[in-house]
Amino acid sequence: MTAESGSEPRRPSEPIRSREVVRFEREADVLVVGQGVAGCCAALEADAAGRSVIALERAGAGGGASALSGGLIYLGGGTPVQQAAGFEDSEEEMFAFLLAASQPGADEEKIRLYCRDSVEHFHWLESQGVPFKRSFCEEPGLEPRTDDCLVYSAGENCHPWSSIARPAPRGHKPRVPGKGGGLLMRCMLEAVGRSGVEVENDTRVENLVLDDDGAVVGIHARTAGVDRFFRARRGVVLAAGGFIMNPEMRSRHAPQLARVTDPNGTEGDDGSGIRMGQGAGGDTLRMDLGEVALPYTIPSSLSRGVYLNGAGQRFINEDTYYGHIGIEGLFHQQGRVYLLLDETTFRRGMVRMEPSWVAETIEELEREAGFAEGVLVATMELYNRHAAKGEDPLFHKRPELLRPLVTPPFALIDCRIENAIWSGFTLGGLRTGLDGEVLSPDGLRVPGLHAAGRTAALFSGHGYPGSGASLGDASYFGRRAGRAVAAAPSR
Amino acid sequence: MTAESGSEPRRPSEPIRSREVVRFEREADVLVVGQGVAGCCAALEADAAGRSVIALERAGAGGGASALSGGLIYLGGGTPVQQAAGFEDSEEEMFAFLLAASQPGADEEKIRLYCRDSVEHFHWLESQGVPFKRSFCEEPGLEPRTDDCLVYSAGENCHPWSSIARPAPRGHKPRVPGKGGGLLMRCMLEAVGRSGVEVENDTRVENLVLDDDGAVVGIHARTAGVDRFFRARRGVVLAAGGFIMNPEMRSRHAPQLARVTDPNGTEGDDGSGIRMGQGAGGDTLRMDLGEVALPYTIPSSLSRGVYLNGAGQRFINEDTYYGHIGIEGLFHQQGRVYLLLDETTFRRGMVRMEPSWVAETIEELEREAGFAEGVLVATMELYNRHAAKGEDPLFHKRPELLRPLVTPPFALIDCRIENAIWSGFTLGGLRTGLDGEVLSPDGLRVPGLHAAGRTAALFSGHGYPGSGASLGDASYFGRRAGRAVAAAPSR
Repeated sequence: MTAESGSEPRRPSEPIRSREVVRFEREADVLVVGQGVAGCCAALEADAAGRSVIALERAGAGGGASALSGGLIYLGGGTPVQQAAGFEDSEEEMFAFLLAASQPGADEEKIRLYCRDSVEHFHWLESQGVPFKRSFCEEPGLEPRTDDCLVYSAGENCHPWSSIARPAPRGHKPRVPGKGGGLLMRCMLEAVGRSGVEVENDTRVENLVLDDDGAVVGIHARTAGVDRFFRARRGVVLAAGGFIMNPEMRSRHAPQLARVTDPNGTEGDDGSGIRMGQGAGGDTLRMDLGEVALPYTIPSSLSRGVYLNGAGQRFINEDTYYGHIGIEGLFHQQGRVYLLLDETTFRRGMVRMEPSWVAETIEELEREAGFAEGVLVATMELYNRHAAKGEDPLFHKRPELLRPLVTPPFALIDCRIENAIWSGFTLGGLRTGLDGEVLSPDGLRVPGLHAAGRTAALFSGHGYPGSGASLGDASYFGRRAGRAVAAAPSR
Repeated sequence: MTAESGSEPRRPSEPIRSREVVRFEREADVLVVGQGVAGCCAALEADAAGRSVIALERAGAGGGASALSGGLIYLGGGTPVQQAAGFEDSEEEMFAFLLAASQPGADEEKIRLYCRDSVEHFHWLESQGVPFKRSFCEEPGLEPRTDDCLVYSAGENCHPWSSIARPAPRGHKPRVPGKGGGLLMRCMLEAVGRSGVEVENDTRVENLVLDDDGAVVGIHARTAGVDRFFRARRGVVLAAGGFIMNPEMRSRHAPQLARVTDPNGTEGDDGSGIRMGQGAGGDTLRMDLGEVALPYTIPSSLSRGVYLNGAGQRFINEDTYYGHIGIEGLFHQQGRVYLLLDETTFRRGMVRMEPSWVAETIEELEREAGFAEGVLVATMELYNRHAAKGEDPLFHKRPELLRPLVTPPFALIDCRIENAIWSGFTLGGLRTGLDGEVLSPDGLRVPGLHAAGRTAALFSGHGYPGSGASLGDASYFGRRAGRAVAAAPSR
């Protein structure tokens, strides 16, 4: 196709050559594709550097998946909130935790920068108008129901991390009761509104425009069915989300994630940003991985219960971050997970806690739920014997959450993936360097192209650190991408 | 760079434009990159279709990783060997097994074709001169030490597969004692020698050559430091191996596989074929996955022992194919695996079986090996109690291999990945269609480009069916690629 032909539409991975473009309607130093948190941060930084910026958003308004999220941002090293709440933290401790939790395959250099600049990044977010209360919320994991800020959102104070780095809570939520993603994005979009960034909503970017040397020099978009071409003098930042809402990509690249009952994303998370980047020569990383949360131990008192796999064995310390439980449960236990509680530990949780089986003895529960004879009994005998001593030598659940489960009736919650709530989104995407520059399979830069947010692979490797890492990565590396494009020479 | 400039060498993912090429030294209908089993099959079929074929091999002679392999080829549906050995099999049973074992994310259409044509493929291999004895070897898993042919190489007669499809052995080894990959490739290379295929050895393909429409029209290679350009009238087949011998790609894309002690491959398995395909627009799939074998239950009598994970729990039926054990052990048990045997079950195995701990009781063994108090005792009590009844309700090991482990001394073999032999190779690679056509992130063909063998992603999904699948996929889809390129229009 040529730009003017109007024949069969080109797919995202098919770039358009600049010589095919009859006319660029508009031109700016920097074009930013998408106005979730990554795109807003990139646009703001490029604008702050004195460049002209056009941000393109396919929806009627920005926000993206960031606006639907809990709003936790992973920040540490001694932020004002950490200090006010009395938590000691340092760049080194934060780095030790993030590196360990992200292995294998963690991007050590990115994690190093991310930790080094974390306090600065906190201040920058506040300077854009994102408010954070100087307060801590005891209940770990989920974003606080109150407007409190700080939570343990990654199991830092649980095995094995607590022995690797000094624990500190690092999940920072904007000052609003409940989910904080909406407020975060309202603030970020207002900041964009105050800046010199020009936003084009309802404008879906469909292709990149490349010059004959393969450099990205613009984009092709559509608004209300009309083709539009925008030229970028210094570069393009792809911040168009991940691919959790694209069933075909999800099944092909991340078949385990395809089983998740509650995909977190907007219709924009169709992977088009990733495919545009690939079409320009970008490599991808970790396309099968995702964040997966199994939120059955919220509130944390429910982690006094015991998670069992399909063989009736324990497989994790139940007190850890429920994202770790989800990932272990989905990728390593095939989504076959049960939660066992007794009379003293059962209570209503965040999600509907309807026991599928209730019995007066473990033997009976085992039989009714169809486990092999003796399996649950053996698991619970061992657990109870150690728990009575305040020990969990298998998985090291914290003593304060250890108590023998001996008071009938016993209940088994069916958390198998067919029957329970599992939420998730993709973490794989374009391979990028420290400034969000998109890299080829040989590690060379794709000229003029940057990516951030879930269009790029998260800094973590095959481990997932915890809640707040995705918004943290998106906002921090989004800013770096914006600054880098702003500093690029004009073409 | 232009083709004649001789400046900084271009990387594999950087194609050369045909207009940059001053002179193509040679020209053929079909160019085949690599002379492992996939490349030989592609070349032979293109030649048989009456096309001119040049095959390029970077080593001094063909063979590649195929020649180093055990030589098992996964074939079924009633091959002459299966029939002679008295095994009933059908396309449907083979399909049911392969599909289930390859999930999640299996390529159903490819598996369908592979099973449909399996008997024909057997005959074709024989017609090329690969000899198969009409015989069965009782010892499953490893290629027979004798010149016998047929083995269970995928746990078909083990849980859970035995209840999904009627079990049949489908690993076919060429007629030679021990490893069969050498004979397989001698035969295939002789067949190529008898054909019209022209082979250029010591010729390393470094880049693809593309025309201005992005179609692959040739290759750039080097022989003894001299640049050479070959033109392809109908297309190029990339059959240049996987990337297990490229430490940088392995760490980035498959960090778990990077831990494997015995990577299976040649120096050619550096991922250059995959990167060339990506540079031309090809997508990749399943880059983190691999074949991983933990060969400690060879001979199979050793699977009377019990595999334990780092928590001292069983995690698999020990009688299954040792590739399943390796994959489960590496990807899902973090490479923390032990094998427990007693006096009656211990014997020398294929690999050095030096017990790391020996003790008169399980309690003592548990303590000495550093397991949590009571864990091994609980695991073994449950196992022995059921085994005494010929049952394994947890993992369904076959009754004939079940016996209580009660005769001291007890031995624990340390199979943790730091201390034991784990072998493996990559299974991820270029995304291809049914004829090996390389596909873009949007599923469109890259004109003129096909891939086969481990340069392409295996037909399986995130499951790995068993030994013989990789050579089977490489040879069968290599043939299809060769035929498809031969049938392509001349440019």
